[in-house]
Amino acid sequence: MKQPPTPIRPADDEARRLVRELVHAARFGALGVLAPRTGGPMVSRVAVIWDDGPVTLISELSHHTQALRTNPTASLLLGEPGDKGDPLTWPRISLQGRVCFLDRRSDAHDALRAVWLERHPKARLYIDFTDFSFARLEVAEAHLNGGFGRAYLLGPQDLG
Amino acid sequence: MKQPPTPIRPADDEARRLVRELVHAARFGALGVLAPRTGGPMVSRVAVIWDDGPVTLISELSHHTQALRTNPTASLLLGEPGDKGDPLTWPRISLQGRVCFLDRRSDAHDALRAVWLERHPKARLYIDFTDFSFARLEVAEAHLNGGFGRAYLLGPQDLG
Repeated sequence: MKQPPTPIRPADDEARRLVRELVHAARFGALGVLAPRTGGPMVSRVAVIWDDGPVTLISELSHHTQALRTNPTASLLLGEPGDKGDPLTWPRISLQGRVCFLDRRSDAHDALRAVWLERHPKARLYIDFTDFSFARLEVAEAHLNGGFGRAYLLGPQDLG
Repeated sequence: MKQPPTPIRPADDEARRLVRELVHAARFGALGVLAPRTGGPMVSRVAVIWDDGPVTLISELSHHTQALRTNPTASLLLGEPGDKGDPLTWPRISLQGRVCFLDRRSDAHDALRAVWLERHPKARLYIDFTDFSFARLEVAEAHLNGGFGRAYLLGPQDLG
């Protein structure tokens, strides 16, 4: 059997609609960073919200934060498969960019804290620990996979 | 509020039991690779099985395969959160290592093909496309996160 070629499509309205659904529905994602010791990739789970872009709340004690303090390059996979069928037929988006940490003693932090707790009420248990801060992923490039044969390359302008 | 320190624990029987559950239950995971053009991390979804270690079935046409053909260093996150509560309280494991591709015309391929189709019957649609092959992650290191304050550093001997 021979596979038909899978072209990467540019963004269109269908892709942008799917992206909006995915990024606003996501409560968590898989964060990829560069391990400081080896330079290799390291993937871990993070909680997220979408606030004009992807935001996570992470602890200085975690491996991924230590990695990001060394090298802010990161990737974030959003969009979870449902229970049924082939997991690869469910849409997901892979974002690439750089992470910027927010100062805990800033108005931006306070504003995000309120939005975060609406979406993640149980985070009240640790959100005020001094080792936790918000980090934004500034997206440079995104790959949308809407299921087999539906791959799109997107830019920051196609998200949100 | 001040966070108590979170020590990384060495593997114990509880950790190894949790790992076994996680890795055998996983039908998909988040694969981290190094993007050839930027050297930055790139995370994407892959289907997996556990066959004496993590195995995925990937296409030469995909970004992650192109990346792995350039640099086989990879990371794989397994273990999905349930529907309820804080997604970070659900256990997951992050594996780091190197990916080895299996020759499609080998006995090892044929053996894995049978195991794969038992676990992923819908893959029958594409498993015999010539651009698909199996890849094993040879795990060098693993981080188990059993929920807040339950972090373990594991070696290959603790998996399986």
